[in-house]
Amino acid sequence: MEKIRLIPLGGLGEVGKNMMVIEYGEDIIIVDAGLMFPDDEMFGVDLVIPDTTYLQDKKQRIRAILITHGHEDHIGGLPYVLPALDFPPVYATRLTQGLIQVKLKEHKLQDRAIVKMVAPGDKVKLGKCTAEFFHVNHSIPDAVGIVIHTPVGTVVHTGDYKFDHTPVDGQPADFGTLARIGTEGVLVLLGDSTRVESPGYTPSERVVSDSLDKIFANAPGRILIATFASLISRVQQVVDTAVRYGRQVALVGRSMVSNVQMAIDLGYLNIPKHTLIRAEDINKLPPERIVIICTGSQGEPTSALTRIANQDHRLVRIQPGDTVILSATPVPGNEKMVNRTINNLFRQGAEVFYQGVSPVHVSGHAAQEELKLMLSMIRPKFFVPIHGEYRQLMLHAKLAASLGIPADHIVIAEDGDVIEVTKNAIHAVGHVSCGNVYVDGLGVGDVGQIVLRDRQVLAQDGILMAVLTVDKETGRPLAGPDIISRGFVYMRDAEELLASARERVLESFIGLNGHASDWSFVKDKIKHTLSEFLYEKTHRRPMVLPVVMEV
Amino acid sequence: MEKIRLIPLGGLGEVGKNMMVIEYGEDIIIVDAGLMFPDDEMFGVDLVIPDTTYLQDKKQRIRAILITHGHEDHIGGLPYVLPALDFPPVYATRLTQGLIQVKLKEHKLQDRAIVKMVAPGDKVKLGKCTAEFFHVNHSIPDAVGIVIHTPVGTVVHTGDYKFDHTPVDGQPADFGTLARIGTEGVLVLLGDSTRVESPGYTPSERVVSDSLDKIFANAPGRILIATFASLISRVQQVVDTAVRYGRQVALVGRSMVSNVQMAIDLGYLNIPKHTLIRAEDINKLPPERIVIICTGSQGEPTSALTRIANQDHRLVRIQPGDTVILSATPVPGNEKMVNRTINNLFRQGAEVFYQGVSPVHVSGHAAQEELKLMLSMIRPKFFVPIHGEYRQLMLHAKLAASLGIPADHIVIAEDGDVIEVTKNAIHAVGHVSCGNVYVDGLGVGDVGQIVLRDRQVLAQDGILMAVLTVDKETGRPLAGPDIISRGFVYMRDAEELLASARERVLESFIGLNGHASDWSFVKDKIKHTLSEFLYEKTHRRPMVLPVVMEV
Repeated sequence: MEKIRLIPLGGLGEVGKNMMVIEYGEDIIIVDAGLMFPDDEMFGVDLVIPDTTYLQDKKQRIRAILITHGHEDHIGGLPYVLPALDFPPVYATRLTQGLIQVKLKEHKLQDRAIVKMVAPGDKVKLGKCTAEFFHVNHSIPDAVGIVIHTPVGTVVHTGDYKFDHTPVDGQPADFGTLARIGTEGVLVLLGDSTRVESPGYTPSERVVSDSLDKIFANAPGRILIATFASLISRVQQVVDTAVRYGRQVALVGRSMVSNVQMAIDLGYLNIPKHTLIRAEDINKLPPERIVIICTGSQGEPTSALTRIANQDHRLVRIQPGDTVILSATPVPGNEKMVNRTINNLFRQGAEVFYQGVSPVHVSGHAAQEELKLMLSMIRPKFFVPIHGEYRQLMLHAKLAASLGIPADHIVIAEDGDVIEVTKNAIHAVGHVSCGNVYVDGLGVGDVGQIVLRDRQVLAQDGILMAVLTVDKETGRPLAGPDIISRGFVYMRDAEELLASARERVLESFIGLNGHASDWSFVKDKIKHTLSEFLYEKTHRRPMVLPVVMEV
Repeated sequence: MEKIRLIPLGGLGEVGKNMMVIEYGEDIIIVDAGLMFPDDEMFGVDLVIPDTTYLQDKKQRIRAILITHGHEDHIGGLPYVLPALDFPPVYATRLTQGLIQVKLKEHKLQDRAIVKMVAPGDKVKLGKCTAEFFHVNHSIPDAVGIVIHTPVGTVVHTGDYKFDHTPVDGQPADFGTLARIGTEGVLVLLGDSTRVESPGYTPSERVVSDSLDKIFANAPGRILIATFASLISRVQQVVDTAVRYGRQVALVGRSMVSNVQMAIDLGYLNIPKHTLIRAEDINKLPPERIVIICTGSQGEPTSALTRIANQDHRLVRIQPGDTVILSATPVPGNEKMVNRTINNLFRQGAEVFYQGVSPVHVSGHAAQEELKLMLSMIRPKFFVPIHGEYRQLMLHAKLAASLGIPADHIVIAEDGDVIEVTKNAIHAVGHVSCGNVYVDGLGVGDVGQIVLRDRQVLAQDGILMAVLTVDKETGRPLAGPDIISRGFVYMRDAEELLASARERVLESFIGLNGHASDWSFVKDKIKHTLSEFLYEKTHRRPMVLPVVMEV
């Protein structure tokens, strides 16, 4: 029986690096190619991107990569995935392709990549399938969901969405199209699960405008507002409020400047003439005439707001009367960094408004009642929750079941799982190779489990090296052992311990009978003896590394 | 003019390791001696305890350490602080001293420490001061606030508190005593700021009972509930609910077992006969007759619940029909670990209830309206917010100001600040040496900034060592350089890079003219050359460690 295969390569069982492979016959269509920021345990890793091993021998079958919107977790993998897949064509809406181009230029790929522009309502023929784009609300303009018409049936991918009746970009949810799609019949819905833990409805962006208004009305001096550089609609809200209160706006932070410029060029930001000023000129105006929009809402160490909070920024110093707004929610794992930034801003004397004490941010994702609304309008035969950790996928599945979708019509899948859908049934049928690909500096994929495990051991208790030179002929130690340690104990305070360690190393040579030996055996012995000795003395387990040189 | 000095050694400007020094004349009274769990950047550190350097030359003036309640952030520093301060007497309520004794026994200090039992209402003469204890509600029974009567005036330390009209231990807030204290006149109030960001009132513990009831009523199989081992009142709630639903209770997790046993012995837990069963016997009863109370509500890697979630526990495996309740809020920084545990429990097929989807936990700290209530009842002349990061202290100060306390009657202080209070004025007058003392394995205080910074560098990009043996006479390399790397690149995949690195090291010897040289200069040169080379090739910055041995 004819079938569709769905193979998530990212974003299912995790939050980030979204990438969904949809196969019908010889045609492969990919939705999104995002990145993920590393976990705490992924020491030193800069980015995590999807593992495209599965697609390596199927490149010629890839008809397109369709992009739902311009957030990093949907487009950030493109500079790595596109070359790996021989540059299949990318389809994206206008603002999204603008953000993609900024990114491709940074990686010097703009000449090789093919990015085609689409608009909501457009249909694109891809092999025997047709993709159709529909407008959704999200925390970035020009976000779309995607309908893929296949001979087996219709697949609907919601992208990230919420329902906003009063969005900042003036384009409310397109209920007409959603209802039409549902009425035409949908085989399988792939639905965003990010905010399934929240009951009710996600508030409209309008709520933020009201909060900003209140804060602007009472701010005695400058206003600094930090948000995501891609949150173009938030920038619009701030600009609108600034204009209303007779303030001019400066942009601080590289990605904020480049994204805003691009959004202005493409007409996605409406900024009255002379409203924008250069960051260098902020001190030429009285404080009550200034708004600074900057990066750093996540407390990222090198971002503008963090530098400002640490009195470490080239242009901006907190001064009495400043008001700072963090218009974002901390991404899980960033709470401590964000709190530290807030504490430092308060210490400098700023008034600080942030999520939790003031409604200065709303989510871009659908809460439970909106998820139900989507399910009820699309009325899919089968359902696969996407975009979320396992518990979120599970809760979304339960929510769909509560609306009457039979349990065997719902599949909870994680990255690498293969789902087969026919007209009559949906099943998880297997698993393909699929893990995390780590980007560290210039290396893509070269940092693997061994390197990471070493970093974890080094981070925990440091390293202790025992270096000695031995006679090639006799096996007798000629120099050393030198004991060198980093991150284990402060060497100057631990001379006695290290002297004892040196003795233990020498003891490992006793019984070798003065002739050249199997050095790997000796090294193992040194390692074992030292590890035990150090643990006994300190209850720490540094990495122990014996180095034996023959001369 | 006569004065009181207040010197926080922990808990102000941070959450944890609470310790407040109160001085009048020759008398020093300390309130609490807690620990703090390490931040993400404190690699390898097990615990953080207060720095008592300031007290080192004042030991004979210390009249007592008064303990407000038995949580780790109030008593956990005692095993380190007591020996350092020559064992001043500790005063604590009954349950609190039970928890302290458990801790002292672990550290084999029970024979040297003096722990005296007090009850709410008791007064203790301490030099020229008198301490008086009053009952407060918190998420552990037997919590107290402390009044210290000095010749200058009265200091009130709230401890951690909330107002609960229907607490589990049946002892509601003691409004009578609070009102009396306020009426008698209070010079300075030290007030818990932990939950100042939350508007309204913190719900009563009763809310949790209602949630448990609903979950128990619908659970088809076993119920596992994880909470803090010190949350004795939560254990009582679970036991009560279990009895109501005809279930027996097993305890899993070392600290849960020892704390519960101690609480039973002291009469703080009321458990009907035959309700408790051994964890080994849980499979002898039908699932719907079982409740398991375990540790691990914070997703701690070696805790019972985490092991259960990872299918790695000696006695308990998740089975179909199991219901798991996480009755705790993730401490900031633990969100990812907690989420991972929840995901794994869902993966094993359990139904999981947790904060955010179900009201299975309430805070033990006062929200804004309760903070106002405390301020209004105590009516202090001066106010110092305690227990919180800077932003929380700041918000608590603003809240106090909103109740009419003049700005110059409020001091925001952080650890180590010295506050002087006279009958007429309060001022921050200086700062004493006060930092974090790290406990790592057996070492207390030996891990400092240098060791931690090394661990951070090692964690980020690993280490690369260049080891070579040179002729003592000629300075000519005899063996090596051997290039050894851990946590930087996977050596087997990076042979070319490491071979080039080897060449660079040898190049550093060119121009040394074949005679013995200043090795520290050569090592610096190797380090510099290699670091630049490796950054250029990889954009990573491993620790580079040249080792030169002479023979």
